[in-house]
Amino acid sequence: MAVRAAVAGASGYAGGEILRLLAGHPEIEIGTLTGNSNAGERLGTLQPHLAPLAGRVLEETTTAALRGHDVVFLALPHGRSAAVAEELGDDVLVVDCGADFRLTDTAAWERFYDTPHAGSWPYGLPELPGARAALRGTRRIAVPGCYPTAVSLALFPAYAAALVEPEAVVVAASGTSGAGKAAKPHLLGSEVMGSMSPYGVGGTHRHTPEIAQNLSAAAGTPVTVSFTPTLAPMPRGILATCTARARPGTTAEAVRATYEEAFRDEPFVTLLPEGRWPATAAVYGSNAALLQVAYDEAAARVVVVAAIDNLTKGTAGGAVQSMNIALGLPEELGLPTIGVAP
Amino acid sequence: MAVRAAVAGASGYAGGEILRLLAGHPEIEIGTLTGNSNAGERLGTLQPHLAPLAGRVLEETTTAALRGHDVVFLALPHGRSAAVAEELGDDVLVVDCGADFRLTDTAAWERFYDTPHAGSWPYGLPELPGARAALRGTRRIAVPGCYPTAVSLALFPAYAAALVEPEAVVVAASGTSGAGKAAKPHLLGSEVMGSMSPYGVGGTHRHTPEIAQNLSAAAGTPVTVSFTPTLAPMPRGILATCTARARPGTTAEAVRATYEEAFRDEPFVTLLPEGRWPATAAVYGSNAALLQVAYDEAAARVVVVAAIDNLTKGTAGGAVQSMNIALGLPEELGLPTIGVAP
Amino acid sequence: MAVRAAVAGASGYAGGEILRLLAGHPEIEIGTLTGNSNAGERLGTLQPHLAPLAGRVLEETTTAALRGHDVVFLALPHGRSAAVAEELGDDVLVVDCGADFRLTDTAAWERFYDTPHAGSWPYGLPELPGARAALRGTRRIAVPGCYPTAVSLALFPAYAAALVEPEAVVVAASGTSGAGKAAKPHLLGSEVMGSMSPYGVGGTHRHTPEIAQNLSAAAGTPVTVSFTPTLAPMPRGILATCTARARPGTTAEAVRATYEEAFRDEPFVTLLPEGRWPATAAVYGSNAALLQVAYDEAAARVVVVAAIDNLTKGTAGGAVQSMNIALGLPEELGLPTIGVAP
Amino acid sequence: MAVRAAVAGASGYAGGEILRLLAGHPEIEIGTLTGNSNAGERLGTLQPHLAPLAGRVLEETTTAALRGHDVVFLALPHGRSAAVAEELGDDVLVVDCGADFRLTDTAAWERFYDTPHAGSWPYGLPELPGARAALRGTRRIAVPGCYPTAVSLALFPAYAAALVEPEAVVVAASGTSGAGKAAKPHLLGSEVMGSMSPYGVGGTHRHTPEIAQNLSAAAGTPVTVSFTPTLAPMPRGILATCTARARPGTTAEAVRATYEEAFRDEPFVTLLPEGRWPATAAVYGSNAALLQVAYDEAAARVVVVAAIDNLTKGTAGGAVQSMNIALGLPEELGLPTIGVAP
Repeated sequence: MAVRAAVAGASGYAGGEILRLLAGHPEIEIGTLTGNSNAGERLGTLQPHLAPLAGRVLEETTTAALRGHDVVFLALPHGRSAAVAEELGDDVLVVDCGADFRLTDTAAWERFYDTPHAGSWPYGLPELPGARAALRGTRRIAVPGCYPTAVSLALFPAYAAALVEPEAVVVAASGTSGAGKAAKPHLLGSEVMGSMSPYGVGGTHRHTPEIAQNLSAAAGTPVTVSFTPTLAPMPRGILATCTARARPGTTAEAVRATYEEAFRDEPFVTLLPEGRWPATAAVYGSNAALLQVAYDEAAARVVVVAAIDNLTKGTAGGAVQSMNIALGLPEELGLPTIGVAP
Repeated sequence: MAVRAAVAGASGYAGGEILRLLAGHPEIEIGTLTGNSNAGERLGTLQPHLAPLAGRVLEETTTAALRGHDVVFLALPHGRSAAVAEELGDDVLVVDCGADFRLTDTAAWERFYDTPHAGSWPYGLPELPGARAALRGTRRIAVPGCYPTAVSLALFPAYAAALVEPEAVVVAASGTSGAGKAAKPHLLGSEVMGSMSPYGVGGTHRHTPEIAQNLSAAAGTPVTVSFTPTLAPMPRGILATCTARARPGTTAEAVRATYEEAFRDEPFVTLLPEGRWPATAAVYGSNAALLQVAYDEAAARVVVVAAIDNLTKGTAGGAVQSMNIALGLPEELGLPTIGVAP
Repeated sequence: MAVRAAVAGASGYAGGEILRLLAGHPEIEIGTLTGNSNAGERLGTLQPHLAPLAGRVLEETTTAALRGHDVVFLALPHGRSAAVAEELGDDVLVVDCGADFRLTDTAAWERFYDTPHAGSWPYGLPELPGARAALRGTRRIAVPGCYPTAVSLALFPAYAAALVEPEAVVVAASGTSGAGKAAKPHLLGSEVMGSMSPYGVGGTHRHTPEIAQNLSAAAGTPVTVSFTPTLAPMPRGILATCTARARPGTTAEAVRATYEEAFRDEPFVTLLPEGRWPATAAVYGSNAALLQVAYDEAAARVVVVAAIDNLTKGTAGGAVQSMNIALGLPEELGLPTIGVAP
Repeated sequence: MAVRAAVAGASGYAGGEILRLLAGHPEIEIGTLTGNSNAGERLGTLQPHLAPLAGRVLEETTTAALRGHDVVFLALPHGRSAAVAEELGDDVLVVDCGADFRLTDTAAWERFYDTPHAGSWPYGLPELPGARAALRGTRRIAVPGCYPTAVSLALFPAYAAALVEPEAVVVAASGTSGAGKAAKPHLLGSEVMGSMSPYGVGGTHRHTPEIAQNLSAAAGTPVTVSFTPTLAPMPRGILATCTARARPGTTAEAVRATYEEAFRDEPFVTLLPEGRWPATAAVYGSNAALLQVAYDEAAARVVVVAAIDNLTKGTAGGAVQSMNIALGLPEELGLPTIGVAP
């Protein structure tokens, strides 16, 4: 019997990607779709790529509309998930793609967000140590941010193995879909094509504490993160360049061995053969993450580069992967591992 | 029992896309992969997006390597398919993505190609009148060119219904993957990003006679085609703007009704609701074709715009769709109808 | 003594390009800059590429602010230019980049615009027959639309020489800056990158009557135009593919000779050597237009492809070129003929 | 009397950009152009954007061809400049855009290059401490690499003022023109559009020792550099994100004040107002560098982001700027400070 899933926020980029994946998921039946300002419109108008769902009409995002499903995906602005989840009750699996339940530390939340801290839910990055156990059977999932997904995959093994010092430096390039579908002048095609620019520099981006939380957990000690996100002229993709000073005694061999070990059995993470570096194009539309590591002896730093699709592994794919675990389904079900390239 | 498929030319863009689709096809088992200059290399090096096939090694393109499969896809330079097909014999389904067997008219072939005319095979554009009947049970398929796929879908209904005069004017924009993976200076990213340019202007492009053949067949009378292809700054996609003078008596209503009727039951072709126009992004990686029609009363012309993915519906998807028909499988099996967008 | 120029609408793309050119014009002193919703802001915030003007502050668009200049460039929404021009009086050269004074035919205006027809001014496409004479000494200039600039340059010689039938078919690709700087969802980078799409199909685009007016004037007989504009994934550039049926007796040689003759002495229009086709990248930021012609014997059609920068030759460059003529300055003054490539 | 300039390597991207600038330089007369495999071809075929020079024909790169000029720009593969310079003699100003004479340290050269170390020439980054004095009157200029230009501008003030620790971490995104015009598969438009990828990771890129040399000179102590270059889907531009750990006592105010002071009188470098971050689009085709700084208190790091056009300020513009100084011309002569945007 199919699992019935609703999607709140189906008109946005995250919602559209969730639907793209659910439409190909053999155990899912797509139920109610909601959208805020777009209630009453056909999905075909809003998401023309979702051809088989073109005739679906969006409803208002209300608890009534979302009731009666086994799974509810929330792709809403932050600050709204707690109320929806409470009203839906504990029998429904709520998969929150927003930020509300990602941070465990209230002080960290309050430094970066203007709403009260809602608490924390099992974290939907199954590859992190202990994450799968927390996800199994849960009815609440906090899907990670797209940058934290890429950066945490890239650096947690180095921290778990104590290869590097607790000061990470991360510069990541993101496709424009990461900024959402709201029309803002600086996101116009005329502005972004042919241009790279940073934003949220100097520790001000909201994904900073989430990255620090994940790396600190892996390290067992507080890790600071210098994080600079940049906007790249592409619709999708994150390329995260992550470095940290090597601790004394760290060798290139130890780094390689640690990463091979960390991802040996992971279905969605590939440590590339030596000499090959990841490109975001190779994971376009795929739930895969591609990684490569280097040890820069002259600079005494470990460098890890990760490529993901911000909307797939970075949002909707991670959400579905975590849902699969929560529901006891095979973790890989319905998730593409082949990118659309070139 | 799975159908075993080999792909000759697996290192190129067409071959890569065939593999992307076959890897998701529930009835196919991927067998031998061959490549010319790349024999001996891992597929992971050549097609990093095909993660699950990364360990496969390319063989030389020989008949011996291709034997023992139920289906052989040929993605080879023109002039080579006839010999391979003959050696493989009549029991093997040969799906030729090259030009060799597309044209029925030897004189037309000889005006555009420098090799002898090899003949013609059942034509792999199932939506054309009579095409499915010819494909059913066949062991030879000539997959259409990418432009002819888009243009023929756009204009055959108008010609079949005698709505327009037999002089078509077509201007089509293609993503750069249509030009293949061979490194040529004018295809460098530095040259194509931010730039549009025409090529093969004035009736010199090799897809011209193929388009004329399809439209003439639909019209039952010779149709001439003024075809101008242009190179667009995007990896994939064809947007074909197709116009012809309306015949006396043609009305906007007749045009709309004709197109609604033509595609009502087609699984891969969508005539969009009035007022919506197709964008290539909506069919990125999908086997769908999106169409819209207009009747320009002042200019007395019918205008049809079609969007396809040149590598999917325009090549590999059309090939797999036709294969499904030839093998008696459900026509839609293994073929995505959702694009990867944004 | 320098010519003082004001720019109304300096925060938009047309206004920014006018400023880029005026800043390099040896006879111009840039005076007042105005902007609607941006009055009071620094130009450096709105147009960060105009580094030397970063400290300028925009004023409200009022006649008072615009008075006291020798030249006033208007880059305003249509319907507003007539009032501004009247208040500025006959001593000021008013260069209107909007549509208000482009069309001579009131009926044509009323079919495409919702404001009363304001009349017509000397038309700022100096290369058209008779245009320079009308521009010399004028105090009013109607700058052509970007598409009409490209298409009229491409086709007027064929019509003036009666080489083709009076039914033109034009498909043109435009960079996104042609759609302006207002933030609309379909113009987001996420939507336009990697995508081609048509708009204003079927004779509904407002540039259609302007193109028809120019070609009809050249032909001395009414010319109908089937015009399909498309949005291309690039910030700038127009590639216009323009075709018309050859009249009996037209030869490839006659076509070539006509175009060579038409542009022999034009400083900004280059008919490329045979075998070379224009790319928009080659005119990025330049006031040059690149053209090539072909005669398709099988289809009996003349094909002309023109590449311009929509913001330079297609708007601001054409405006400055026309201003130079009006003021009696050398026509080429301050206008780049080298593109920024690659 | 005009300064006569020759360009060796005029068919490549660096050579083309040098010509674009020289064509607009009021004191320069463009003399001989040479190209290796393209000798005998018209420049119009190779560099269609350089319309006014279209008729020029490339000669072989020989000393004989280059003699008789006041200035010779070399845009050649490394290892060839020393011989050419010696044969041209000491009266000719030789501006070498290659790597041969950039490094002062032979051991550093030998770790990264396979040819013998040729020595070092005055370094063409006038903004560095002491650089202008060395350039004035010189007859030999080593033009910096594009990455070292961006990174050195971004970090030298912090090192000169001892604000940061001697371990810099740099991640920079470059447009594809930085990889040159040679046709390589991974540089095809189909591969680079929509994709970000790193290369030369782990301290292996040849610009690493050049960056270290400049920062070490500013610091007066050896500085190590962890440098990761990435390829971005745009033709031009470098966005360099540069960070280093703050030394004890460093404050946000001190950082800001240091950078304001460092660039107060620089004609080509702009420290943006607080809150504004640089985008590469704003310097497209311009010799300007845009910078912004941040002090990340939580991570205790200074972050500086610089945007330049890799071909202009990063190569040809820096070359012409340095030439101006060497010849005693005004430093800004012929150099655009306005970008072509959007």
